[in-house]
Amino acid sequence: MSGFILHPRLDADTAFVVDWPLCRVLAMRDARYPWAVLVPRREAVEVFDLDEKDRAVLVEEVARAAQGLKRLSDASKINIGALGNLVPQLHVHVVARNPGDAAWPGPVWGQGTAVAHAPGALEDFVRRLVNGL
Amino acid sequence: MSGFILHPRLDADTAFVVDWPLCRVLAMRDARYPWAVLVPRREAVEVFDLDEKDRAVLVEEVARAAQGLKRLSDASKINIGALGNLVPQLHVHVVARNPGDAAWPGPVWGQGTAVAHAPGALEDFVRRLVNGL
Repeated sequence: MSGFILHPRLDADTAFVVDWPLCRVLAMRDARYPWAVLVPRREAVEVFDLDEKDRAVLVEEVARAAQGLKRLSDASKINIGALGNLVPQLHVHVVARNPGDAAWPGPVWGQGTAVAHAPGALEDFVRRLVNGL
Repeated sequence: MSGFILHPRLDADTAFVVDWPLCRVLAMRDARYPWAVLVPRREAVEVFDLDEKDRAVLVEEVARAAQGLKRLSDASKINIGALGNLVPQLHVHVVARNPGDAAWPGPVWGQGTAVAHAPGALEDFVRRLVNGL
Protein backbone atom coordinates (compact mmCIF):
# COMPACT_ATOMS: atom_id res chain seq x y z
CA MET A 1 0.00 0.00 0.00
CA SER A 2 2.00 2.97 -1.20
CA GLY A 3 1.20 6.27 0.45
CA PHE A 4 0.84 4.83 3.92
CA ILE A 5 2.72 6.86 6.51
CA LEU A 6 2.93 5.65 10.08
CA HIS A 7 2.31 8.39 12.64
CA PRO A 8 5.70 9.55 14.02
CA ARG A 9 4.75 8.76 17.60
CA LEU A 10 3.73 5.20 16.72
CA ASP A 11 6.90 4.91 14.70
CA ALA A 12 9.01 6.02 17.67
CA ASP A 13 7.24 3.79 20.20
CA THR A 14 7.28 0.53 18.23
CA ALA A 15 9.30 -1.83 16.07
CA PHE A 16 8.07 -3.22 12.75
CA VAL A 17 6.85 -6.82 12.80
CA VAL A 18 5.02 -7.60 9.54
CA ASP A 19 2.46 -6.23 7.09
CA TRP A 20 -0.78 -8.21 7.02
CA PRO A 21 -3.41 -7.64 4.28
CA LEU A 22 -4.91 -4.64 6.08
CA CYS A 23 -2.73 -3.77 9.05
CA ARG A 24 0.88 -3.04 9.78
CA VAL A 25 1.75 -5.09 12.85
CA LEU A 26 4.08 -3.42 15.33
CA ALA A 27 5.69 -4.41 18.64
CA MET A 28 5.58 -1.86 21.45
CA ARG A 29 8.94 -0.84 22.89
CA ASP A 30 7.84 -1.61 26.44
CA ALA A 31 9.20 -4.66 28.22
CA ARG A 32 6.46 -4.60 30.86
CA TYR A 33 3.93 -6.35 28.62
CA PRO A 34 3.87 -8.42 25.43
CA TRP A 35 2.19 -5.72 23.38
CA ALA A 36 1.34 -5.52 19.69
CA VAL A 37 -0.23 -2.63 17.79
CA LEU A 38 -2.18 -3.05 14.53
CA VAL A 39 -2.43 -0.05 12.21
CA PRO A 40 -4.76 -0.29 9.20
CA ARG A 41 -2.93 1.07 6.15
CA ARG A 42 -5.80 3.42 5.42
CA GLU A 43 -6.74 7.02 6.10
CA ALA A 44 -8.84 6.48 9.21
CA VAL A 45 -9.28 7.90 12.69
CA GLU A 46 -12.34 6.01 13.89
CA VAL A 47 -13.29 2.41 13.17
CA PHE A 48 -16.31 3.70 11.24
CA ASP A 49 -13.98 5.53 8.85
CA LEU A 50 -13.11 2.12 7.42
CA ASP A 51 -15.56 0.52 5.01
CA GLU A 52 -17.40 -2.64 6.02
CA LYS A 53 -15.04 -4.91 4.09
CA ASP A 54 -11.99 -3.45 5.80
CA ARG A 55 -13.69 -3.69 9.19
CA ALA A 56 -14.27 -7.40 8.66
CA VAL A 57 -10.57 -7.83 7.87
CA LEU A 58 -9.61 -5.68 10.85
CA VAL A 59 -11.51 -7.79 13.36
CA GLU A 60 -9.98 -10.96 11.89
CA GLU A 61 -6.47 -9.53 12.13
CA VAL A 62 -7.13 -8.33 15.69
CA ALA A 63 -8.43 -11.80 16.63
CA ARG A 64 -5.39 -13.43 15.02
CA ALA A 65 -3.01 -11.14 16.92
CA ALA A 66 -4.90 -11.68 20.17
CA GLN A 67 -4.90 -15.45 19.85
CA GLY A 68 -1.26 -15.56 18.81
CA LEU A 69 -0.15 -13.27 21.60
CA LYS A 70 -2.07 -15.30 24.16
CA ARG A 71 -0.43 -18.48 22.90
CA LEU A 72 3.06 -16.97 22.73
CA SER A 73 2.93 -15.35 26.14
CA ASP A 74 0.63 -17.72 28.03
CA ALA A 75 -1.32 -14.63 29.16
CA SER A 76 -4.39 -14.93 31.31
CA LYS A 77 -6.22 -12.14 29.43
CA ILE A 78 -5.83 -10.15 26.26
CA ASN A 79 -6.72 -6.45 26.36
CA ILE A 80 -7.79 -4.79 23.12
CA GLY A 81 -8.09 -1.06 22.78
CA ALA A 82 -8.51 1.62 20.13
CA LEU A 83 -8.17 4.95 21.93
CA GLY A 84 -6.42 7.54 19.79
CA ASN A 85 -6.70 10.46 22.19
CA LEU A 86 -3.05 11.31 21.56
CA VAL A 87 -2.37 9.69 18.17
CA PRO A 88 -5.29 10.18 15.78
CA GLN A 89 -4.19 7.56 13.22
CA LEU A 90 -6.46 4.54 13.81
CA HIS A 91 -4.53 1.86 15.67
CA VAL A 92 -5.53 -1.09 17.81
CA HIS A 93 -3.56 -2.19 20.86
CA VAL A 94 -3.43 -5.92 21.62
CA VAL A 95 -1.82 -6.48 25.01
CA ALA A 96 -1.12 -9.68 26.95
CA ARG A 97 -2.02 -9.26 30.60
CA ASN A 98 -1.43 -11.26 33.75
CA PRO A 99 -2.26 -10.79 37.42
CA GLY A 100 0.71 -9.05 39.02
CA ASP A 101 1.85 -7.20 35.90
CA ALA A 102 2.72 -3.52 36.22
CA ALA A 103 -0.84 -2.22 35.82
CA TRP A 104 -3.03 -5.21 36.70
CA PRO A 105 -6.05 -5.12 36.84
CA GLY A 106 -6.12 -1.60 35.41
CA PRO A 107 -5.48 -0.68 31.78
CA VAL A 108 -1.91 -0.35 30.50
CA TRP A 109 -2.52 3.00 28.83
CA GLY A 110 -1.33 6.02 30.79
CA GLN A 111 0.15 3.87 33.56
CA GLY A 112 3.76 4.62 34.42
CA THR A 113 6.39 4.82 31.72
CA ALA A 114 7.62 2.32 29.21
CA VAL A 115 10.53 0.10 30.26
CA ALA A 116 13.18 -0.50 27.62
CA HIS A 117 13.87 -4.10 26.65
CA ALA A 118 17.14 -5.72 27.61
CA PRO A 119 19.60 -5.93 24.70
CA GLY A 120 18.22 -8.34 22.13
CA ALA A 121 14.89 -8.86 23.88
CA LEU A 122 12.87 -6.64 21.54
CA GLU A 123 14.37 -8.38 18.53
CA ASP A 124 13.52 -11.74 20.12
CA PHE A 125 9.94 -10.59 20.74
CA VAL A 126 9.59 -9.38 17.15
CA ARG A 127 10.92 -12.71 15.87
CA ARG A 128 8.42 -14.59 18.03
CA LEU A 129 5.61 -12.41 16.70
CA VAL A 130 6.69 -12.92 13.09
CA ASN A 131 6.72 -16.68 13.57
CA GLY A 132 3.87 -17.04 16.05
CA LEU A 133 1.04 -14.70 15.13
CA MET B 1 -31.00 -15.79 22.61
CA SER B 2 -32.30 -17.73 25.57
CA GLY B 3 -29.73 -18.76 28.12
CA PHE B 4 -27.82 -15.48 27.98
CA ILE B 5 -26.97 -14.23 31.45
CA LEU B 6 -25.34 -10.83 31.89
CA HIS B 7 -22.44 -10.86 34.35
CA PRO B 8 -23.70 -9.45 37.69
CA ARG B 9 -21.11 -6.69 37.73
CA LEU B 10 -22.06 -5.50 34.24
CA ASP B 11 -25.69 -5.72 35.27
CA ALA B 12 -25.06 -3.56 38.34
CA ASP B 13 -22.98 -0.97 36.50
CA THR B 14 -25.26 -0.40 33.51
CA ALA B 15 -28.80 0.14 32.28
CA PHE B 16 -30.37 -1.85 29.44
CA VAL B 17 -30.65 -0.03 26.12
CA VAL B 18 -31.53 -2.51 23.37
CA ASP B 19 -30.72 -5.96 22.00
CA TRP B 20 -29.05 -5.88 18.59
CA PRO B 21 -28.62 -9.07 16.50
CA LEU B 22 -25.45 -10.08 18.35
CA CYS B 23 -24.96 -7.73 21.29
CA ARG B 24 -26.88 -6.48 24.24
CA VAL B 25 -26.34 -2.72 24.31
CA LEU B 26 -25.97 -1.16 27.75
CA ALA B 27 -25.48 2.37 29.10
CA MET B 28 -22.86 2.81 31.81
CA ARG B 29 -24.11 4.36 35.07
CA ASP B 30 -21.41 7.03 35.00
CA ALA B 31 -22.34 10.61 34.22
CA ARG B 32 -18.72 11.58 33.48
CA TYR B 33 -18.82 10.19 29.94
CA PRO B 34 -21.37 9.12 27.34
CA TRP B 35 -20.49 5.43 27.59
CA ALA B 36 -22.04 2.37 26.01
CA VAL B 37 -21.11 -1.28 26.52
CA LEU B 38 -21.79 -4.02 23.97
CA VAL B 39 -22.03 -7.60 25.21
CA PRO B 40 -22.24 -10.40 22.63
CA ARG B 41 -24.96 -12.83 23.72
CA ARG B 42 -22.55 -15.74 23.44
CA GLU B 43 -20.29 -17.73 25.72
CA ALA B 44 -17.05 -15.84 25.09
CA VAL B 45 -14.17 -14.33 27.01
CA GLU B 46 -11.83 -13.32 24.18
CA VAL B 47 -12.76 -11.96 20.75
CA PHE B 48 -11.31 -15.14 19.23
CA ASP B 49 -13.84 -17.22 21.17
CA LEU B 50 -16.48 -15.90 18.75
CA ASP B 51 -16.66 -17.48 15.31
CA GLU B 52 -15.76 -15.44 12.24
CA LYS B 53 -19.39 -14.68 11.38
CA ASP B 54 -20.09 -13.32 14.85
CA ARG B 55 -16.88 -11.30 14.77
CA ALA B 56 -18.01 -9.62 11.56
CA VAL B 57 -21.31 -8.71 13.22
CA LEU B 58 -19.49 -7.54 16.35
CA VAL B 59 -17.30 -5.07 14.50
CA GLU B 60 -20.34 -3.71 12.64
CA GLU B 61 -22.27 -3.25 15.88
CA VAL B 62 -19.25 -1.61 17.52
CA ALA B 63 -18.88 0.74 14.55
CA ARG B 64 -22.60 1.56 14.67
CA ALA B 65 -22.42 2.33 18.39
CA ALA B 66 -19.26 4.39 17.93
CA GLN B 67 -20.69 6.45 15.09
CA GLY B 68 -24.01 6.96 16.86
CA LEU B 69 -22.36 7.96 20.12
CA LYS B 70 -20.10 10.41 18.35
CA ARG B 71 -23.08 11.98 16.61
CA LEU B 72 -25.21 12.09 19.75
CA SER B 73 -22.53 13.53 21.97
CA ASP B 74 -20.49 15.57 19.50
CA ALA B 75 -17.40 13.88 20.94
CA SER B 76 -13.96 14.59 19.58
CA LYS B 77 -12.87 10.95 19.89
CA ILE B 78 -14.41 7.56 20.50
CA ASN B 79 -12.48 5.11 22.67
CA ILE B 80 -13.11 1.41 22.16
CA GLY B 81 -11.87 -1.20 24.58
CA ALA B 82 -12.28 -4.88 25.38
CA LEU B 83 -10.35 -5.47 28.59
CA GLY B 84 -12.06 -8.01 30.82
CA ASN B 85 -9.45 -8.16 33.56
CA LEU B 86 -12.20 -7.93 36.18
CA VAL B 87 -15.27 -9.18 34.29
CA PRO B 88 -14.45 -12.16 32.08
CA GLN B 89 -17.65 -12.06 30.00
CA LEU B 90 -16.63 -10.56 26.64
CA HIS B 91 -17.79 -6.94 26.49
CA VAL B 92 -16.73 -3.93 24.45
CA HIS B 93 -16.68 -0.41 25.85
CA VAL B 94 -17.54 2.44 23.48
CA VAL B 95 -16.86 5.76 25.15
CA ALA B 96 -17.25 9.34 23.91
CA ARG B 97 -14.25 11.44 24.88
CA ASN B 98 -13.43 15.12 24.84
CA PRO B 99 -10.45 17.22 25.90
CA GLY B 100 -11.08 18.30 29.46
CA ASP B 101 -13.18 15.30 30.47
CA ALA B 102 -12.41 13.60 33.78
CA ALA B 103 -9.64 11.35 32.42
CA TRP B 104 -8.48 13.07 29.23
CA PRO B 105 -6.19 12.12 27.52
CA GLY B 106 -5.86 8.93 29.55
CA PRO B 107 -8.21 5.96 29.41
CA VAL B 108 -11.46 6.00 31.38
CA TRP B 109 -10.91 2.57 32.89
CA GLY B 110 -9.61 2.56 36.43
CA GLN B 111 -9.73 6.36 36.69
CA GLY B 112 -11.59 7.71 39.71
CA THR B 113 -15.06 6.50 40.54
CA ALA B 114 -18.30 6.58 38.63
CA VAL B 115 -20.50 9.65 39.14
CA ALA B 116 -24.22 8.98 39.43
CA HIS B 117 -26.48 10.67 36.90
CA ALA B 118 -28.80 13.44 38.03
CA PRO B 119 -32.43 12.27 38.39
CA GLY B 120 -33.77 11.41 34.95
CA ALA B 121 -30.48 11.89 33.17
CA LEU B 122 -29.67 8.19 32.77
CA GLU B 123 -33.17 7.54 31.40
CA ASP B 124 -32.68 10.45 28.98
CA PHE B 125 -29.33 9.04 27.86
CA VAL B 126 -30.83 5.58 27.36
CA ARG B 127 -33.67 7.09 25.30
CA ARG B 128 -31.18 8.99 23.14
CA LEU B 129 -29.23 5.77 22.58
CA VAL B 130 -32.36 3.80 21.67
CA ASN B 131 -33.32 6.45 19.14
CA GLY B 132 -29.88 7.54 17.97
CA LEU B 133 -27.61 4.53 17.66
